[in-house]
Amino acid sequence: MAKARDHGRAAALRAASEVREWHREADVVVVGYGAAGACAALGAREAGARVLVLERASGGGGTSANSTGEIYLGGGTPVQQACGFEDSPEAMFAYLMASCGPNPDEAKIRLYSDSSVDHYHWLVAQGVPFKPTFYGEGSYVFTDDCLAWSGSELNTRYAALAKPAPRGHTVQREGIVAGGELMRALCEASVAAGVEIATDCRVETLVQDDERRIVGVVARIDGAPRCIRARGGVVLCAGGFVNNREMVERHAPWLWRCRMRMGVEGDDGRGIRMGLGAGGDAIRMDAGCIVMPFTVPKQHVKGVLVNLQGQRFINEDAYQSDVGEAALRTQDGQVYLILDHELYERPFPPVEIAAVGDTIEEVERELGMPEGELQHTVAYYNRHAARGEDPLFGKTAELLKPLTRPPFAALDYRVDHSLWSVFTMGGLHTSIDGEVITPDGDVVPGLFAAGRTTSGLAAQGYSSGLSLADATFFGRRAGARAASQASDAAPGGSPAGAGETIGAAAIGQKS
Amino acid sequence: MAKARDHGRAAALRAASEVREWHREADVVVVGYGAAGACAALGAREAGARVLVLERASGGGGTSANSTGEIYLGGGTPVQQACGFEDSPEAMFAYLMASCGPNPDEAKIRLYSDSSVDHYHWLVAQGVPFKPTFYGEGSYVFTDDCLAWSGSELNTRYAALAKPAPRGHTVQREGIVAGGELMRALCEASVAAGVEIATDCRVETLVQDDERRIVGVVARIDGAPRCIRARGGVVLCAGGFVNNREMVERHAPWLWRCRMRMGVEGDDGRGIRMGLGAGGDAIRMDAGCIVMPFTVPKQHVKGVLVNLQGQRFINEDAYQSDVGEAALRTQDGQVYLILDHELYERPFPPVEIAAVGDTIEEVERELGMPEGELQHTVAYYNRHAARGEDPLFGKTAELLKPLTRPPFAALDYRVDHSLWSVFTMGGLHTSIDGEVITPDGDVVPGLFAAGRTTSGLAAQGYSSGLSLADATFFGRRAGARAASQASDAAPGGSPAGAGETIGAAAIGQKS
Repeated sequence: MAKARDHGRAAALRAASEVREWHREADVVVVGYGAAGACAALGAREAGARVLVLERASGGGGTSANSTGEIYLGGGTPVQQACGFEDSPEAMFAYLMASCGPNPDEAKIRLYSDSSVDHYHWLVAQGVPFKPTFYGEGSYVFTDDCLAWSGSELNTRYAALAKPAPRGHTVQREGIVAGGELMRALCEASVAAGVEIATDCRVETLVQDDERRIVGVVARIDGAPRCIRARGGVVLCAGGFVNNREMVERHAPWLWRCRMRMGVEGDDGRGIRMGLGAGGDAIRMDAGCIVMPFTVPKQHVKGVLVNLQGQRFINEDAYQSDVGEAALRTQDGQVYLILDHELYERPFPPVEIAAVGDTIEEVERELGMPEGELQHTVAYYNRHAARGEDPLFGKTAELLKPLTRPPFAALDYRVDHSLWSVFTMGGLHTSIDGEVITPDGDVVPGLFAAGRTTSGLAAQGYSSGLSLADATFFGRRAGARAASQASDAAPGGSPAGAGETIGAAAIGQKS
Repeated sequence: MAKARDHGRAAALRAASEVREWHREADVVVVGYGAAGACAALGAREAGARVLVLERASGGGGTSANSTGEIYLGGGTPVQQACGFEDSPEAMFAYLMASCGPNPDEAKIRLYSDSSVDHYHWLVAQGVPFKPTFYGEGSYVFTDDCLAWSGSELNTRYAALAKPAPRGHTVQREGIVAGGELMRALCEASVAAGVEIATDCRVETLVQDDERRIVGVVARIDGAPRCIRARGGVVLCAGGFVNNREMVERHAPWLWRCRMRMGVEGDDGRGIRMGLGAGGDAIRMDAGCIVMPFTVPKQHVKGVLVNLQGQRFINEDAYQSDVGEAALRTQDGQVYLILDHELYERPFPPVEIAAVGDTIEEVERELGMPEGELQHTVAYYNRHAARGEDPLFGKTAELLKPLTRPPFAALDYRVDHSLWSVFTMGGLHTSIDGEVITPDGDVVPGLFAAGRTTSGLAAQGYSSGLSLADATFFGRRAGARAASQASDAAPGGSPAGAGETIGAAAIGQKS
């Protein structure tokens, strides 16, 4: 029997009748202080609730602070307009429905597409800076520009379904880790709004009353368990489970093969396990966002990805997590990128050259591939690329270039040999208001969740920026709904000590 | 929010303190009377418990009775010996570990491999008939013979890891639905052992006491809810969830595309949802056994399976659910089988011919495939097949035959055009004793599960006979463990009315 001792118990509920005293109380208790937690807190404060955020690390930020700071927004945002791109909620909805499945959450996608422009304005009102400039293509924005093509909108398949528009909105900051700037803004806004924050405070489990309503949490503070009451509800914003090996192997074992796990230590599935213990349902637990990092420099996308049989298996310009998922699930992570001298440039991150030769035949032989197949693949690709066509997979014409300039090289993108990255996408099943849903489709009273603790806009498939979209938009809604359930909350009231971040010691005292 | 009203609520627990009266009581209550339920009942009776089986249909059998009646057994069974095959627990273990993953449950596979010969004898002792004769290859045994190659044991990849042996043991009965004979034997054995059985009795939810132990069930009998106490434990043997569309779409949406769902109406996930409601964990919920039915007649395996690009993507002689999974997940279910005149025979089940031509080029054109690719694929295949080689995928030499005799045909095995079948493989996480495990790795006191309600020997991947292996072996163990927890059970005692199947009315009376 698998024990998950390293990550502690979380699913075992505490009965409210066993709570001797409540050390503290708030209308809404938010577990986790990444983007979802901060927005849940802000949403609850807007609704007039007294809010307490409990964060296990020594400061706010979570995985969001380490991210690119790109948020998927569209439907005609001011930035899209300033950059000369037309977009509509309908086009955004059509694209997300087609690319976030199979079977994405239509209600979430509908609401988010319709509300995305409003959400942009709300983020700006919280102090999140966006520069109204267009960066271009790619999931990473290396400058302080904002708008980028962050998904597969331009791909033939999706462009036929919905008018394409770039929707990746990266927070204004130089460099590719703009998530720090996002979290700086959201944390400052939280403090300014009167949200109380306790750090170094790990929530251990949920407290349930006799009627199966979640009424609080048990948190470990200074080594001792403390019971904290939530009058309206608890919002779980505790990240995903990519750093819990047992959970990954139980639900999505193939993801563990990716060496770079995108998450902080707290992404150990504790939030999901707490939600399960309270009666929630975890869905799409096998889904992950897998990135095989072959797209920097950009012209490498003009190369040819092949499997061990020397065959192509996807259009190389598909969204990078689609490439990653196809490469891992359908090719067992055994793929090479074939380039010619004209295309080759030092890749980032670095990767080994598996073979090099003056002819494709030499490369094929060096890779130990079945005789003739790679030669056929490249010859077929070249013949059609010269005409601007990719009859096999429909790669965009601008990215088609015959591989003709020797020497030729095969970059080793096998999963065990290069730096694939991954995060989990499965999690608690929630309503559009962040309510945690049971396997029967009922609501768990008093319990809410948002961000990577939940299954979000993208059930599977992905476009860059959807994680922060989920976290910020549905985090805010979850906080607001939890606040609405603190029936006698004093509107606009603040708890003692609100408006500043306090240490664990402060909360250890009885309120 | 998704409501699962059609399939009723199951995850909402009933508190024991709310139970006004127990209408009936047993040491062990078994939910479901398929192979897992019958063996759980037998296992509990062997341990001296009073056992009550509750079945929602009007008789025993469940999906097991509609199955092929093939049980995966090995390690040197009398049938294997009589047929001249050597096998060992080690070889069986090595094969199952390699083919039932990624990340199969090693403890279950270890125990089952070591205990398989004993389990064979136990089944025989229950009256399950096996004829000590060898049938041959294939997942379906059309005669009353027993032993068959039921998995991928002979495939190059697995044969290199473990000495191959045929391990499919089909119950003796003419025809391919020998599961009826298995269930006849197990039901007769249950009655003879003094198991009490109530049919037309749908279990609605579990009853939990103040210490979170499962102490009974609420069952709907004659339209009224009745509380039934389980002194030792409840064993959930209620099948999988293939017939609950909402659950499939939530956890494994791609499976829903297969038109033939292998399960009875009761396979609606109720057992899994009850287990989740009690604090259990459901794992590998995306996994399914997918059969693309192209292997009858057998020589069709000598044909070539291609995707929409005209490429091969797997060795056609892989185990048929491996082919099905690859075809559905990696090729979006869009595949054709290419045959020549020499190989073609009327397929079973019937399937459309998508294209026919005097040359492969004609077939390629008729299928609308990229120009030249299918021609290349077949030419390459033929050239190597003539030498007994398949450098691309390692298909067995005996099955390699160049496709040279016109006319050529493409059979339409696209998932929306042919009769793919499927069952779900995900379910409750259980120990080797059938204890239901929480997301933290703890045991849910008083709750056990077996069969398709659980994730079993094959976490993913599959070989024919593993479902009935899971059901019969781990069902028996779950029953025995539940019995051991009815501390003051009278060994050998029988409840009033035991030893016969009773109708719902009888159980409606207070005991």
